[in-house]
This record gives sequence, C-alpha cells and structure tokens, in this order.
Amino acid sequence: MTAPPTTALGPASDLAQVFELAQQLRVDSVRASTAAGSGHPTSSLSAADLMAVLMTRHLRYDWDAPDDPAADHLVFSKGHASPLLYAMFKAAGAIGDDELMTTYRRSGHRLQGHPTPVLPWVDVATGSLGQGVAYGVGMALAGRELEGRSYRVWVLCGDSEMTEGSVWEALDKAGHHRLANFTALIDVNRLGQSGPTELEWDTSAYARRAEAFGCRAIVVDGHDLAAVDRALTTAADGQAPTVVVARTVKGRGVTEVADKNGWHGKPLPGDMADRAVAELGGVRDLRVRGPRPPEATPVSVTPARTGGPSSPPRYDVGDEVATRVAFGSALAALGASRPDVVALDAEVGNSTHAEDFRTAHPERYFQTYIAEQQMIADAVGMAVRGFRPYATTFAAFLTRAHDFIRMAAVSQIDMALCGTHCGVEIGADGPSQMGLEDLAMMRSVRGSTVLYPSDATSAVALTLAMADLDGISYLRTTRGAYPVLYADGESFPVGGSKTLRHGDHDEVTLVGAGVTVHECLAAAERLAADGVRARVVDLYSVKPIDTEAIARAARDTGALVVVEDHHPEGGIGEAVLSALATDARTRASAHPAFAHLAVTGLPGSGTSGELLDAAGISRSHIVRAARALVER
Amino acid sequence: MTAPPTTALGPASDLAQVFELAQQLRVDSVRASTAAGSGHPTSSLSAADLMAVLMTRHLRYDWDAPDDPAADHLVFSKGHASPLLYAMFKAAGAIGDDELMTTYRRSGHRLQGHPTPVLPWVDVATGSLGQGVAYGVGMALAGRELEGRSYRVWVLCGDSEMTEGSVWEALDKAGHHRLANFTALIDVNRLGQSGPTELEWDTSAYARRAEAFGCRAIVVDGHDLAAVDRALTTAADGQAPTVVVARTVKGRGVTEVADKNGWHGKPLPGDMADRAVAELGGVRDLRVRGPRPPEATPVSVTPARTGGPSSPPRYDVGDEVATRVAFGSALAALGASRPDVVALDAEVGNSTHAEDFRTAHPERYFQTYIAEQQMIADAVGMAVRGFRPYATTFAAFLTRAHDFIRMAAVSQIDMALCGTHCGVEIGADGPSQMGLEDLAMMRSVRGSTVLYPSDATSAVALTLAMADLDGISYLRTTRGAYPVLYADGESFPVGGSKTLRHGDHDEVTLVGAGVTVHECLAAAERLAADGVRARVVDLYSVKPIDTEAIARAARDTGALVVVEDHHPEGGIGEAVLSALATDARTRASAHPAFAHLAVTGLPGSGTSGELLDAAGISRSHIVRAARALVER
Repeated sequence: MTAPPTTALGPASDLAQVFELAQQLRVDSVRASTAAGSGHPTSSLSAADLMAVLMTRHLRYDWDAPDDPAADHLVFSKGHASPLLYAMFKAAGAIGDDELMTTYRRSGHRLQGHPTPVLPWVDVATGSLGQGVAYGVGMALAGRELEGRSYRVWVLCGDSEMTEGSVWEALDKAGHHRLANFTALIDVNRLGQSGPTELEWDTSAYARRAEAFGCRAIVVDGHDLAAVDRALTTAADGQAPTVVVARTVKGRGVTEVADKNGWHGKPLPGDMADRAVAELGGVRDLRVRGPRPPEATPVSVTPARTGGPSSPPRYDVGDEVATRVAFGSALAALGASRPDVVALDAEVGNSTHAEDFRTAHPERYFQTYIAEQQMIADAVGMAVRGFRPYATTFAAFLTRAHDFIRMAAVSQIDMALCGTHCGVEIGADGPSQMGLEDLAMMRSVRGSTVLYPSDATSAVALTLAMADLDGISYLRTTRGAYPVLYADGESFPVGGSKTLRHGDHDEVTLVGAGVTVHECLAAAERLAADGVRARVVDLYSVKPIDTEAIARAARDTGALVVVEDHHPEGGIGEAVLSALATDARTRASAHPAFAHLAVTGLPGSGTSGELLDAAGISRSHIVRAARALVER
Repeated sequence: MTAPPTTALGPASDLAQVFELAQQLRVDSVRASTAAGSGHPTSSLSAADLMAVLMTRHLRYDWDAPDDPAADHLVFSKGHASPLLYAMFKAAGAIGDDELMTTYRRSGHRLQGHPTPVLPWVDVATGSLGQGVAYGVGMALAGRELEGRSYRVWVLCGDSEMTEGSVWEALDKAGHHRLANFTALIDVNRLGQSGPTELEWDTSAYARRAEAFGCRAIVVDGHDLAAVDRALTTAADGQAPTVVVARTVKGRGVTEVADKNGWHGKPLPGDMADRAVAELGGVRDLRVRGPRPPEATPVSVTPARTGGPSSPPRYDVGDEVATRVAFGSALAALGASRPDVVALDAEVGNSTHAEDFRTAHPERYFQTYIAEQQMIADAVGMAVRGFRPYATTFAAFLTRAHDFIRMAAVSQIDMALCGTHCGVEIGADGPSQMGLEDLAMMRSVRGSTVLYPSDATSAVALTLAMADLDGISYLRTTRGAYPVLYADGESFPVGGSKTLRHGDHDEVTLVGAGVTVHECLAAAERLAADGVRARVVDLYSVKPIDTEAIARAARDTGALVVVEDHHPEGGIGEAVLSALATDARTRASAHPAFAHLAVTGLPGSGTSGELLDAAGISRSHIVRAARALVER
C-alpha cells in the first residue's frame, strides 16, 4: 500500500477519477489473484472500466446496507471475474485490502473462487456460465411484478457464455415482459478459455440477437468511459430491457497479456504482476460512494387478492383423486394464507394443475412457457427477494434445469419444486414424458427435501409443508387418480412415514411411495389370502427418510420389498438401504432379506397397469418377490 | 377404408394431388388418435401441408431402405405430432392402416405416443421439446464434416418449443457452421398446450431471430402448398442453413377445432371424428413415392489422418499424473486406431485435455463452445450416423445437458461422456465448479456404464474400453495429479475392481474410487501402524459394480468404509449397498458394519487436501471411521 487515500468518488466525480478507479480495480485484481496463486485476472481487466462507471455513477447501492429493499442488484454472471468483484468490494469499503490479499480463494474464507451468497453483497452464486442473465430476469420480474419497486438489476456477462441457450431463453423473457429495469452488460473481450470466442468481436451480431429477442441493444467501446456512461444512462431510462454490448480487450492495461491467448484463468507470476501494477499506475486506495438507493417508498404492489379457496381441499377416503390435482388445489389455497407464495409454470399448468393457482392468484402466477431453466431462474430470483416460489412441470422435464437447481443449492435458496407425471404410470405418452431419474437428481441436491405422496390427503399436507422448509424441496406427483388413503386431518411430518397395514406377526414389509403404495396394498391383500402376513409402509418422505420405521419393520419382519416407479439407481430402494446401513440397531442385528423392484427396461406406451406390470413393479410382481423372501 | 388406392404420388405430382395427400394425413391423424383414445390430432393437422409437400417433393428417402447412407433425415422435434408422422409412414407404405389404427399408443407396440428409434424410420427419440433442432444440427454436421455426404436434414418444430434456449443454442451452431444441408420448419400454429404461445403468429419475430443467429429465414403461409414448395426448394439449394417459418392453424381443416384453444393433446370423440373425416373428404389411400436418395457416391470425406500417437500412453508406477491428462492422451491415441471416434468439447479442452485429440485429429474434433446441450446433441447426431463420440466437459456442467442425456438413452445411443474436475478435490475454484451430483445423474441413466479411475493407467484402459461399450458410458476424472498405482498392461474389465491391499486377516475394507483410493491407501498405512489390518478396494467400475469382490470383502472383514468425493445420495456408497443387498451370500450371512463418508456440507475454496478434510473424506476421517467399525 503505497498510495494515500484520496477523496471518495461519487456520482459527481469526473471521468478522470473514474479512470483512476478502474485502474485501481485492475491493480487489485492482479494483486489478489497473484497472491492467491490462482484466479482470472485477465477476465477482470477487460470489465474494469464497465464496473468502475457502473459503481460510481449508476448502481444505486448502500454497501453498508445490502438488504435495503430499494437497492439495485448486481449479478456477476462471469463469476470467474471474482477478483474484479472483490476489488469493487474493497473500493466500496466493504472489505479491506488485507482480506482481499490474504484470504481470496483460501480455505474457510468467504472470498471464494466464484462468488456465492456467503457474501452479503452477492445475491446468487455464479460460476456455471450462462445463468446470471436468467437470475437477473427473475429478480427484475420480482421487483416490478411482486414488489412494485423501482430497483434495477445489472448483470455482467462474459462473451463466451453467450453460446449457452439459457442466455437467450432469458433474454427472450426480458423482452417478453418488457423488463425496463433489467440491463445486461456483455464484456466482449474476444477470448475464451481455450481460444477465440465463436463471435470474437462481432458486436453487431450480439446486438442483432439481443434486438431480435426484444431488448434494446447499445454497442460501445467498453474502455471509453464516456460512452459506457452514456450507455448506462440510457439503460436506466426505464424504457426497455437493455443489452450493452461492450467491445473490450482481455487483459486490458497490461501489455504483456492484453489480447493474448493463453492467459485465461492464470494469475500473473510475481514479477509480471509487479510490472503490471507499475504499468497500471501503482496501488491506489480510492473509495467509492456511488448513488444511494431511492428512499424506501411505500410499496405499490397489487395487494394479494383473496380470491380462491382459503382453506385447503379435503378429500374422503376412497375417493379417486390424482395427487397432481390435490397439489394444485392445495397450492391455490396456500396462496390465500401466504402472500409470499408465488407459482411458476412451464406451459403445462393444465396438466400439473398449477393453473389452479393462476385462477385464484393471477398476480402471483408466472407463465414461463416451455423454458424450464428460466422457470427455475425466475424462482431463484424471486426467492432472493423473499418470496416462496413453487415451480412446476413434468418430473422428466425438470432434468432440463438440473444445473440451475444445482446452483440454486449453492446459493442456498429456499424454494419448492413439483414434478408431475412421474414414472411409467403415465401410460400412453411413452418414455420421453416419464420421470424416471428425478428422485436420483433431487435426492443428490445438497440439503434437499424429497416428498412423494400416495394420495390426495398427503399431497395436500406436503404441499403446504413445503412453504416452510429450508432449502430446495421437491414434491413428486402422479398422473392417475387413485383412492384417498388418509382421512382429512392426518398429519404427515417431513421425515415420517405411514404404516398402512401391520400385524403382530408380519413376515414381510412392502415399502412403496406414490403409485406403488397402492400396488403394495393390493399385493398385501393377495398375500393375506394365501396366509402371508405383509406390513405396508408408505414412504411419503424419501429425504429425509423415516429410518426408525424402516429399521423397525426390518427387525420385525426380517424381509423388505421396496417398490418404486423410478430407475433403481438413486431412488427409494437405495434410500432405504442407506437408512438401514446407518441404523445402529440394524447393524447390530441380522440384516433383512431385501428385494428391490424398480424400472430397469426401456418402457413404451400402454395403460398404467400394463406398464407397471411390464416394468415389474405391479402387485403381481410384489407378491412374487414377497413370497420368495418369505420362503427363502 | 372406403376409398380405393389411387396412383402413387411422386415429385411430378401436381399440388392438387399433394393437397389430397395432406388431407389423407389429416384424416389418418384424426382416426389414429381417436382409435387410441389419446394423442395430439390438432397439432398434427397444422403441419400436414408442410409434411405432404416435403415427403412428396423434397425428402430424398427410400422408405424400404431407411439405412441408405445417402438418404435425407427427418426429425419430428414436435414429437407429440406422432399421428402425423405415423400417417406419413402409412402414406409411404411403410406401415399398414391396420397397424396405425389398432396399435398406436398401445402396449408392446412400436407406434408409441412419441416417436422413438424402435421404428426404423426414426433416428432419435423426441418428445422432450426443444431438442430436435439440436439433433438435426448434429446429423447435418456429421453428414458434411465426417461423411462428406450430401444428405439433407429436415426438422419439424412446434412454435411452443421455440422458447427453449436449446433451440437457439442449436440454431447458433447451424449458422456458425454454415450448415446449408440443414432446414428447420417451424409450425407456427399459435396455440400451445394451455393457451396462446408467447409470440403467437408473430412470424417476423421468429424470422428476425433465425436471421440474427446466422440462418436464412423464409416466412410462408403453411397451408399454401405452392409457397411451401418454393420455400423448401430454396431451403434445398445448398446455400445456407434455413428456417422456414410457417404460419399455420392448429386443427386446420376441421372447423370444430380449428384455431380453438382447449384442444391440445385431445383426441376427437367418435362423433366429432366422423364429422372431421367427412369434412376432410373422407378416407383416402394415396401412396407416396417421393424423391430417391442420390446414388451412393464414393464418400469424399477427408481420410482419417495418422497424426498423433498410435499407441496408448504408458505410465510408470509412482509417477504423478492426473486422470484427466491420461484420458486426453488415451483419446488421442484411440483416434489413430479408430477412425469412427470423434471428440466434442465445450470450450474447456485445455482443462479436460480433450484438446489432445484436436492436435492429433483436428478433422474429427468439434468445438461447441460453451454449449453443453448442443455438445450432447452433436454427439447423438454423430452416433446416429455410426460414429463413436467422446463428449467432454467439467462433470458439474454435464448437469446442464441432463435432459439430453436422458433422451439419448431413450434413443438407445452409444456414446462416451467424460466429466472432469469432479468433487471437492478441484480446490480453489469453489462449489460451482465441483461435480458432486454427477454419479447420481449418470448411474440413473438407463443402461449406462459409470467408470471412475484412480490413476493414469486405469484411466487409459477405461478410456479405450468405452469405445466398445453399448449405451451411454461415463468416465469421471480428477483434476489433480496422483501417483500411478498400476503397471502398464494391467487389465481393467468393466464391472471389475482392484483390491490394492489385502491380507489374510483383514479387519476392515476401505472402498474408494478416484481420489479417495489414494486417501484409503494412506489411511490403511496409518491403520497398519496402529495394528489394524485394512483391505483397500479401488472401485473403478461404479456401474456395473463388482458385487463379488465387495461381497467377499464384506464377508472376509465384516466392516466396510466407503469413501466418495460426491454427495451421499446416488453415488458409490449406495451402489455398494445395492450390490450387497442383492448378493445372495451376503443376505444369508451377517451384514457388514458400514460407514459412508461423502460430501454433505457446502464446500468453499481451498486446497484439495483442505477441502477433502473439511468434507470428511480424507485419510484422517477414514482412519477414524475404520477404527470405530473395528472397535464396535
């Protein structure tokens, strides 16, 4: 630290001072990554001028009060440019030079290789490229539609990530919703990780694409501070969603690496770093105090309407009701008591029954059309702003958003997902529409909850419960209508199970969830007719799992048949085995005999019954498996 | 069947005859879906004119010889319009009216709800919307770059699916590669599943977008046969990738449903179907014999070069080599002996070491930039054409393509995937870059093989083995360099394992894969120093798994510690438990004591060693877990 502190920079500072700030951001990006021994300095240098102008003159933000509801939001979609972001934190006085220089990328510290919300100035984790625009769109939508606030959302993108379809899926929505509070800045520095980008410096191609997707495009020299300032002024005029296409130079300001391939993701060696800092004018200690958020005005959002049912649906035992139907009704009722609940749909609301929510609460219902990645990103953006999203599509199509779900877990988002039409049970539509991998996907999400009701009563209870769960919760629902098993008022704690049938001398336990519970019940009847006593467990909570009930059943009966409408890997059978393996009493006693019935072949079309049977998970297969265990 | 067969239609037929064919396709779409009791007749009716013109005058195809290498390809991206596709099969004489009327969507039959390659005229399964364009681009790329053939690829899209980012990710590549052999037809019928589409009949918006992404756009009235014919003639002129934007009417030709909301995915009731058939002019039995494929000309593709190493790399035991490095070297060597092997990269080839293949075989290396969905779609398209793709990116980012991988399994594609940078082992880059869900994802893919080498020698052997495996195989590689454990020449059968350390009186078995094998070996040393005898198993084949070796170890030692750099759900621990649960001898004997060490917390940045330790999967944690089991 050789330079003395200078006067704080603010909106009134002239561009010569902003240039000094940009150079400081460059210097600190170089210093931090060299000190860490890894990181992406050249990707930071290209965007330093953009960010210097933004934070000094346009980003309305109080770094001491990052939760101010009126504050703008900044998303670093190019999360690898974290040295630049953290240099901005330092320039804002949010962190000190010591933290930047000694903790970046180090174990146990918050300045990670890519930004995550462990930092109070970061809303969403980035680092999986192509996601920042999508989250920004979600936040901008929340601000305008749900909060009625005037904050703006700014997203810094790399040019390499513009080849991700998800970026265009998101910009389509920026255009569709006319999100005038949204601005993306593309740092077109021409060089990707391993070579030139697809479009290199063809800034007009980026502009044509942005405009074709309904956004306003402004092409600028990203190192011309006045031009950048004009572009951001225009972007903030409240007229249109805007994409600023900034032609930049990777490694700008450091002759040895500027516009040179082979320097992506590499810190400068110490001697090069010293020369770079010197070339950039040395270490500075400028402090930025940019525009403040507008005074927190009374929120003008449309008040939650009281339309729709205010109490959850009730069903009579024996009635045939699909769990997806019960989900839709419950969600609509939940919306009446919980104004923070919002519903998101990927153009299948009449199949998933999410449309019940639209009928009751149209102001909190978001149609993303067939765009599952954006649906999840919208949900994340709304969750960041304090809402409780329920995002719904076919279970199979949630796989399209796997990477967004994975990153939402890194962002520690609380949200509910519902996947309908799971398994071969769906029947005639065939394998493309069958969710047969979703339990594996959702169980493997860190901190997730996975629920799978077998009847309408439990579907209602679990739908309501999801509104208060931490992390990402998942409800798996079934297409067909099956008898209601539980009386209204029954409780379904997360982590519990229901033993639907049991006796003193049960010889085998049949464990199912969803549709296979009904198959297990039918199988138990048949077994009883033959004198075989079977216990039946409804494992409606797949994660967390009711280890105690399963272990007790294993000890009591000595034999388990687990049946699931899912591939065998990562689903209910393996969840049960994991539970038993970690249960101390099971480990001390003899392990139960075990049969696992799951979908292993490639299904086709047919009726539900035919397909359950063809997959080997129907009542007749359960009877056979149970008998084999009992007779062993 | 009331109408007599008429003269066959062909390229010389006039448009009045083509109109009769279109009406026949409509009639049969209505009849088939009504007979099945489900299906999407209105979505078929809108595109019937497009397909009648295509199959009569432009699609160069011999329905008796679908494998003709010179034949054009047709992908129904809107797979729900299967009644139309199957009506085309009937018009071509490929199937009979009886099959269409009595087997559509029925159990055990090939005319499934959405088309799959169990039909010889279908290349790829569709039904997950937004994928057909991507596969078409892959096939067009294979035709031009790998086969040197002049076939054309035609893709029929719905308008609803144009909101999927994957479509634009694909069209970007059609433009980038200037794929003049590629044409997409968008059936803009304005109505989606649950209401109007986002862009409704704004055909110029679709055209602007297609042009912005480098394609030629032609807007037509999709029911004006002459206009459609001109558009397809232009599309086939070999000048540019083309998007035909066809304004159509959903339910066209049937007054009761035409352009009416609420008729998506619903067969017409019997009486309505009768009226519809009458309005459409009744049942016909026209036969189409369209243009034939060009004579199979000698393929002009660049012959495989002999550049690069021709024998696989060899490593000395003890050398420190990253498995990703060994993978790249092995792949490059494989390319020399296997001209069908191609490599695909998502702009991380210098990290994954896929770039070694580019150096050796640039003509079979495809850079998809940061576009994982398109990378998988290119691989699928190339596999359809008989090539053996190796598609590689970070394990974490393969989640972006989960739905494409899922559908590739429905298409029964043979291909190899490699995910690098798995687990917390990657260190400073942080959780966004860590593959911690990939084993769960890839194990749950039907028919998959999952391999996870711990050293360079096994990485080479498994990379080579993947070239001959059926289905989708996955290789998980590690960022860091670790000692070579196996001498050159060691064999690594798929489904096997290696017992790296064992004795006559082992008290506990440590099971690892990848980096945790090295931790297990170090733990075994420490345990030995304390007098605890530990066996160490390298589970390099996660699926299929070496049940015999695991069960034997369980019996011999009575205690297993499974350690994995992955979330606990769906990974190696659960694979081991599944193997034990289905092993007859294990079930008959006492079950082993079991400890499962996996990544449960949210990791940050740090060194590999720090992060393995913080996640509880390092040698010291293994020692502690083993000791607890032994002392129980």
